[in-house]
Amino acid sequence: MNIDMIEAAAARAKGHVRRTPLLGSSFLDELAGRRILVKAECLQHTGSFKFRGAWSALSALKDASGVIAFSSGNHAQGVALAARMHGLPSVIVMPADAPALKIANTRAYGAEVVLYDRYSESREAIGEELARDRNLTLIRPYDEPLVIAGQGTCGLEIAEQAAELGVTEADLLVCCGGGGFTAGVALALEGSKLRVHPVEPEDFDDTARSLVAGTRLGNGDATSICDAIVTPAPGEITFPIVQRLCGPGLVVSDDEVLRAMALAFQRLKIVIEPGGAVALAAALFRDIKAETVIATASGGNVDHGMFARALATL
Amino acid sequence: MNIDMIEAAAARAKGHVRRTPLLGSSFLDELAGRRILVKAECLQHTGSFKFRGAWSALSALKDASGVIAFSSGNHAQGVALAARMHGLPSVIVMPADAPALKIANTRAYGAEVVLYDRYSESREAIGEELARDRNLTLIRPYDEPLVIAGQGTCGLEIAEQAAELGVTEADLLVCCGGGGFTAGVALALEGSKLRVHPVEPEDFDDTARSLVAGTRLGNGDATSICDAIVTPAPGEITFPIVQRLCGPGLVVSDDEVLRAMALAFQRLKIVIEPGGAVALAAALFRDIKAETVIATASGGNVDHGMFARALATL
Repeated sequence: MNIDMIEAAAARAKGHVRRTPLLGSSFLDELAGRRILVKAECLQHTGSFKFRGAWSALSALKDASGVIAFSSGNHAQGVALAARMHGLPSVIVMPADAPALKIANTRAYGAEVVLYDRYSESREAIGEELARDRNLTLIRPYDEPLVIAGQGTCGLEIAEQAAELGVTEADLLVCCGGGGFTAGVALALEGSKLRVHPVEPEDFDDTARSLVAGTRLGNGDATSICDAIVTPAPGEITFPIVQRLCGPGLVVSDDEVLRAMALAFQRLKIVIEPGGAVALAAALFRDIKAETVIATASGGNVDHGMFARALATL
Repeated sequence: MNIDMIEAAAARAKGHVRRTPLLGSSFLDELAGRRILVKAECLQHTGSFKFRGAWSALSALKDASGVIAFSSGNHAQGVALAARMHGLPSVIVMPADAPALKIANTRAYGAEVVLYDRYSESREAIGEELARDRNLTLIRPYDEPLVIAGQGTCGLEIAEQAAELGVTEADLLVCCGGGGFTAGVALALEGSKLRVHPVEPEDFDDTARSLVAGTRLGNGDATSICDAIVTPAPGEITFPIVQRLCGPGLVVSDDEVLRAMALAFQRLKIVIEPGGAVALAAALFRDIKAETVIATASGGNVDHGMFARALATL
């Protein structure tokens, strides 16, 4: 993978993927003691950066008759909408106990949702059978070069927008699950003075620990409010890229995430979901030496009950 | 006033005023039965379009030694920040019973806040004495051509961004208080097929009624949650422009405003204050014949208690 793939993805994205704003507030700068810029990917189509990767993959397909994805969250919505915009059918395999709103949203973006019982059925087996029977192409959420290239288009935008604000050197914090966003952004910015660090929730810091260990490690049994990024381990394709270009990783608590969501509401006027707020939480609450920190606000698909919990921290 | 003043304001604004995104969601389109686009001015500096007018006025000043404004809200913050960015002192005259957070924010943007007792003192008398003693220039919130021209820069952006999405004909709904935003946007779009309509809250529909009557009418005693736009009557300078270029006006209830705020949270991932949500409320809940409706989301300075009220409508 290299920058050419990301520039090709950016060319395919033009006019279809939103150029989201790079925001800031003097109130947040003062709180953190440094300049903070926030890339508001919650304003992307389907409410998260995942649409970039999905668009990249869909727009590169040749002669596909349809696509399939496994996801209960943001990747599902990104693939469903990108497929509809390409006039292709999509099948999303979701656990039957996924939140009703996420199932309804995925259907509303035009996908056929196939539910499975996660305790008695294998989604891989179901997906493989469907893919074979209907000739569907699988779109993986992060271990897929076209998806990583699509996420990387966000990095190109960040570099341009930061330069417009006079910023060419900064720490760039990326919300990290399987590592597709982190790897894509890092590849896009290779050789620049924007240094990428993955940020994860406590107990799901597999990437931070894997970077220290020099090998891929998984997470134990735990829970987190950051549902969008509680992946089991770094990806096979993503981790070597993250290892070569990023680090060290940062880790934040659920309480810090809720406070970051509330401050984004109050000072930036954007809605961020827990998994999309870890980078801003690290920018606000971790001791970072860089004069300027750029944080991705990766997604905004949060229900109002969780958002009310965040507001209660104000 | 004419388009040349707005284009001059846009040239002065370049690199200083944010180009806010024009957002949309297929969920909102489906709910309304038409395409809805939302100009997210809540993402502007200081959280509202008011920064545009303040920047326009400040950037046109010659040899000023400082500025003064009367405001308890968004105009205060816009003037304070624009003055600081020009290296000029600002004095904002605010009622002593204004919300503590708004006073604190205005101070944090660098303004000297002068409090007065609105029951026993005249803010005009206080302001005139301060302006004379300290040689300060008064920046009016809407009845000021440079401010109207600044608000009009938003209209130029809307036309460009809508055209990029293939939209050249639409109804454009603007949140309307004194009419500076409505008049500026309408002047910017004169001769286009983007037809501007002012939108107001129930009981503060002075502009809608004045348009019907053909003369400026005031509001009676009432309350509304839309604090940013509960002005007493249309402006002297703004109303003739609105009368010539806009209409008819639309009116929405507080309940509709709260629902629009909640839908903007859920589907657009932006935070809108009540006064900034009236246009989206009309776009969603009024019978509009146009195939496409563009709504300004004028501001996002809402406290979390009011926002929680909006979320409770979901």
